[in-house]
Amino acid sequence: MKDPLQPEGGFAALVGYRLGRWREGHAEILLEVGSRHLNRSGVLHGGVLTTMIDAAGGFAGCHSAEPGVVRRAFTLSLDCHFVTNAPAGSELIASARKTGGGRQIFFSTIEVHDQDGRLIAQGAGVYRYRGTGGA
Amino acid sequence: MKDPLQPEGGFAALVGYRLGRWREGHAEILLEVGSRHLNRSGVLHGGVLTTMIDAAGGFAGCHSAEPGVVRRAFTLSLDCHFVTNAPAGSELIASARKTGGGRQIFFSTIEVHDQDGRLIAQGAGVYRYRGTGGA
Amino acid sequence: MKDPLQPEGGFAALVGYRLGRWREGHAEILLEVGSRHLNRSGVLHGGVLTTMIDAAGGFAGCHSAEPGVVRRAFTLSLDCHFVTNAPAGSELIASARKTGGGRQIFFSTIEVHDQDGRLIAQGAGVYRYRGTGGA
Amino acid sequence: MKDPLQPEGGFAALVGYRLGRWREGHAEILLEVGSRHLNRSGVLHGGVLTTMIDAAGGFAGCHSAEPGVVRRAFTLSLDCHFVTNAPAGSELIASARKTGGGRQIFFSTIEVHDQDGRLIAQGAGVYRYRGTGGA
Repeated sequence: MKDPLQPEGGFAALVGYRLGRWREGHAEILLEVGSRHLNRSGVLHGGVLTTMIDAAGGFAGCHSAEPGVVRRAFTLSLDCHFVTNAPAGSELIASARKTGGGRQIFFSTIEVHDQDGRLIAQGAGVYRYRGTGGA
Repeated sequence: MKDPLQPEGGFAALVGYRLGRWREGHAEILLEVGSRHLNRSGVLHGGVLTTMIDAAGGFAGCHSAEPGVVRRAFTLSLDCHFVTNAPAGSELIASARKTGGGRQIFFSTIEVHDQDGRLIAQGAGVYRYRGTGGA
Repeated sequence: MKDPLQPEGGFAALVGYRLGRWREGHAEILLEVGSRHLNRSGVLHGGVLTTMIDAAGGFAGCHSAEPGVVRRAFTLSLDCHFVTNAPAGSELIASARKTGGGRQIFFSTIEVHDQDGRLIAQGAGVYRYRGTGGA
Repeated sequence: MKDPLQPEGGFAALVGYRLGRWREGHAEILLEVGSRHLNRSGVLHGGVLTTMIDAAGGFAGCHSAEPGVVRRAFTLSLDCHFVTNAPAGSELIASARKTGGGRQIFFSTIEVHDQDGRLIAQGAGVYRYRGTGGA
């Protein structure tokens, strides 16, 4: 049975991240770094971190307390800073917080830590709710 | 036989992007959008675009004309703007240009177009060459 | 007499930038670097460049061919990369191009060059037209 | 007498911001919004916020406990998100925190609040210490 709280998209399954705690204005994206996440230099590909950051920031603005109501958004812009490396085996948590916005646009900031609490990366995104008209 | 000009990293293989034309200061990353690249809303996941943008921008600064010499870099920061959607079946090209820098740091700008020349996303990155000391 | 094509805002006057060529989808912001634009290290303050980048990117989406029609926008996000320094006396041009968007949101990319054509900084912004509802 | 703890640069004086609390890894930049900080739409110019964000993030990495030792840095990249407007009369505080880095590069995140604690803008920067070699 499909878990309605999990991101069911193809890319989430491909990359292997999953949704952790999720509540109004907050979301966590979890991923264990494996060899499939490394780049040609053998270190974590920046794209894995930007994917986690993008997803966490989007979910932070899309929680709905009403059963059956699904909110969706798309990303307008995303900024990521890569503070330090995370080797294979690291258990990463991207923690996002919606920081503002309104009916159509929202802002999120995101931090990625490893299992020891080290800051691996940070980011910020601007998102637009779907169903509020074209750009 | 491993193609020495292709990105051999695990994440490149997982996502399915490949290196296109590559010369001093320029690099292209190619990807055909499949269902595994979509998000839970059925549209291209932002993480696919940020991955292509990150990779293209990095390669743009790492070309080497000397056989056997491999330059590598890691990303310090990456900014991405998502201009319009690209459906499954789209053939995307991320074209990166190194715009400046020096011995340790370089800057790249990147544009992602589809097969019809539409601008899908744009980005910019700051990279650091590996082997030039810790951060 | 007030020039209707010039930015009449207080901050434009304070910083001393002015609008150059302006047409649909394109705008130039001009500034001559003086000692009042330097930071405590005696080099051009990053804030001068971000101000030029922000203004140019916004104007690029706000040109109107109809007399008396004024379009306005506010910035949602701005990314700036500082490629090289520009000493006092430099004549800077920030050239912006609107790269996409729709009725409510638009995207711009901006490059700042000096009088010798050197790239000083680059940026990208996401803007929202005023009068299209709160965020 | 020149206050050694204040930013003595020309642009700081022009814009009218000042350094608040400053300690290892943290810095505050203060500014009261006046009419000279507004844009042609009569609202706070984005360049004022990016200037505060840039300065705060840079100071956060440059505190020195040793008398007479002055650390300086230049900005490599800066990202800013504009969450809500701040009218003339607002007393803004940009609070920056150095989040990582090493001997040559450091990362900062910055939040700008008004006197009522509302989040006005947020940003992140990558900086390079001066005197560690060219880019």
